[in-house]
Amino acid sequence: MEWKQQLREYVDLTNQYLEEMLHEATGHNKTVIEAMKYSLYAGGKRLRPVLMLAAYRLFNSNITEVLPYAAAIEMIHTYSLIHDDLPAMDNDDYRRGKLTNHKVFGEGIAILAGDGLLNYAYELMLQEALKKENPRAFVEAAFQVAKASGVNGMIGGQTVDLESENKSISADTLAYIHLNKTAAIITASLKAGAIIGGGTESDIRNMEMIGQALGLAFQIQDDILDIVGDEAKLGKRTGSDADNQKSTYPSIHGIDASYDKVKQLTEAIYGTLEQYGERGLFLKALSSDLMERES
Amino acid sequence: MEWKQQLREYVDLTNQYLEEMLHEATGHNKTVIEAMKYSLYAGGKRLRPVLMLAAYRLFNSNITEVLPYAAAIEMIHTYSLIHDDLPAMDNDDYRRGKLTNHKVFGEGIAILAGDGLLNYAYELMLQEALKKENPRAFVEAAFQVAKASGVNGMIGGQTVDLESENKSISADTLAYIHLNKTAAIITASLKAGAIIGGGTESDIRNMEMIGQALGLAFQIQDDILDIVGDEAKLGKRTGSDADNQKSTYPSIHGIDASYDKVKQLTEAIYGTLEQYGERGLFLKALSSDLMERES
Repeated sequence: MEWKQQLREYVDLTNQYLEEMLHEATGHNKTVIEAMKYSLYAGGKRLRPVLMLAAYRLFNSNITEVLPYAAAIEMIHTYSLIHDDLPAMDNDDYRRGKLTNHKVFGEGIAILAGDGLLNYAYELMLQEALKKENPRAFVEAAFQVAKASGVNGMIGGQTVDLESENKSISADTLAYIHLNKTAAIITASLKAGAIIGGGTESDIRNMEMIGQALGLAFQIQDDILDIVGDEAKLGKRTGSDADNQKSTYPSIHGIDASYDKVKQLTEAIYGTLEQYGERGLFLKALSSDLMERES
Repeated sequence: MEWKQQLREYVDLTNQYLEEMLHEATGHNKTVIEAMKYSLYAGGKRLRPVLMLAAYRLFNSNITEVLPYAAAIEMIHTYSLIHDDLPAMDNDDYRRGKLTNHKVFGEGIAILAGDGLLNYAYELMLQEALKKENPRAFVEAAFQVAKASGVNGMIGGQTVDLESENKSISADTLAYIHLNKTAAIITASLKAGAIIGGGTESDIRNMEMIGQALGLAFQIQDDILDIVGDEAKLGKRTGSDADNQKSTYPSIHGIDASYDKVKQLTEAIYGTLEQYGERGLFLKALSSDLMERES
C-alpha cells in the first residue's frame, strides 16, 4: 500500500471513532459537548493518533483495541490547544483558519470543554482497559500518556512557555519547552502504540528515541514556518513569534542551524527505523513528509 | 475508637500522602507545582478522601493501596474549584478565607494548575494500578472516578450551573446540577473505595445510594448556609446566591422543605448503613455531622 493511502486509512479510522463517540448532544450538558466537538472536528491532522496506530502496527494488526487510545491522545492534544488559545494564555482568535473555541462559546465554556476533553480521554482509555481480562498493558500505556501530558510533561512545558513570553530565554529553557510541550505527547503516542501492540522493552525505547527526535524536529519546523511559511497554507499569521519577541530555535541558533538540526534528527529517526525493515517504511515516509511540510 | 478520632486519622493520612507526593518544586516547572500545592493545601476538609477511605474500610483494612485514589479524588475536587473560581466562571477572589488561585498566580497559571491537578489524579491512580499483578479492580475504580468527573458528571453540572447564572431555572435543571456537580464525585469516592476494598456488587449499589443522598443533602445544606450561615465560620460571604439571583433548593422549594429534604435523605443513609452494623457507624456519624455543620 502507498504510504499516503495508509495515512488516509489511519486518519479515517481516527475520525470515524471520534465522531461515533461524541455523537449525542441533546441533554442538559449539550453546550459543553458541542464545544468539545467544535475543536475536535476543526480539521486537525491527527498526527498523534496516526503515530500511535503506526507504532501499534509495527507489532500487531488488530487495530480496534488501540483506537480508543488514539482518540484519547487527540483529545488531550485538542484540550491543550483550547486552553493555550485562551486570553490568559496565548490569546489567539484563530486556529487552522477557524475561530478559536472561546471566541465561539465564551471563555467559561472553553475552559470546561478543555477539561471535558482531558477527562474524557482517561474515561475512554480506562473503559477499553476494562474490556481485558488482565489490563496491565493498557494501564501501562495510559500511564505513559498521563506522565507525558502532566506537569512533568506537556503542562510543565506550557507553564515555562507562558512564563517565557516577551523575554529572551536560554537554549536550555527552550529545549525544556520543546521536549515537554511538544515532544512528550508525540513520544507517548508512539510508546503507547508499541506497548498495546506488544513491543518489547527495546522496541519501546526505540519509540522513545524516535518520538523525541520527531517532536523536537516538528517544533523546530514549526518555528521555521513561522518565519518563512505561507500564511494561506498555514491558516494563521506568520511572524507572530518575532512580533511577540518569542525565543525559538531559529532565533537562538539561527535559521541554517535549524535546518541542519531538523536534517540530523531525521537521519537519526531513519537509522532507528532500519531494524523494522518493510514495516518501518510508513513511519519513515511520514517523518520525511513532516520535515518537508509547508503547514 | 471515637469517630472524630477516626476522622482525624483519615484526614491525616490523606494530608501526609498529598504532602509527600508534591514535595519537590525546584525544576523549570516549579511555578505550576507551587500553584497546585497552594490550592491543594488551602485547608480543604478532605471530605471526599475521607468517604473513600471509610468505604474501603467497610471491606478491607490495608489502607495503603487506596491512598493514591483518595489523593486523586481530592485533586480532582481541587482542580474543579480553581477553574470554578476563574473570572470567566464564578469570578471569586476568596475561598476558605484565602485568595483564590488566579488572584495569587494569575489566570494562565491557575488554568494550568487546574489542568495539572486533574491530569496528576490519573497519573497517581494508574501508577498504583500498575503495582498490581492484575489491576482490574483499580481500573474499575478509576473508571468510576472518570465518569463522575467528566461531561456526564461534574463537568456537565458545572456547564449547566454556568449557563444558569442570573436566571431562574426549573427544579429539574437544579436537580441535574446538584446530582452532577456535587453528588457524582461524592458517590464515586464511596464506590471507588468499596471497589478497591473488595465490596460486592450489592455493596457498590449501596455506596451509590448513600453517595447520591449525601451529595444532594450536602448541596442543599450548602445553599441553606448561604442564607442563614455565619460568614466568619464559613470563611466567605453569605447571601451571594440571592445577590446573583441564583436558583437554589431553598429558593425553589422554600427553606422548610429544604430542612425536611435534608432530614429525609439522612434517614435514608442511616437505613442503608444499618446492614453494616458496627462497621457502618463511622459513616453514620459523619453523615450526621455534615447535616449539622455550620461551615
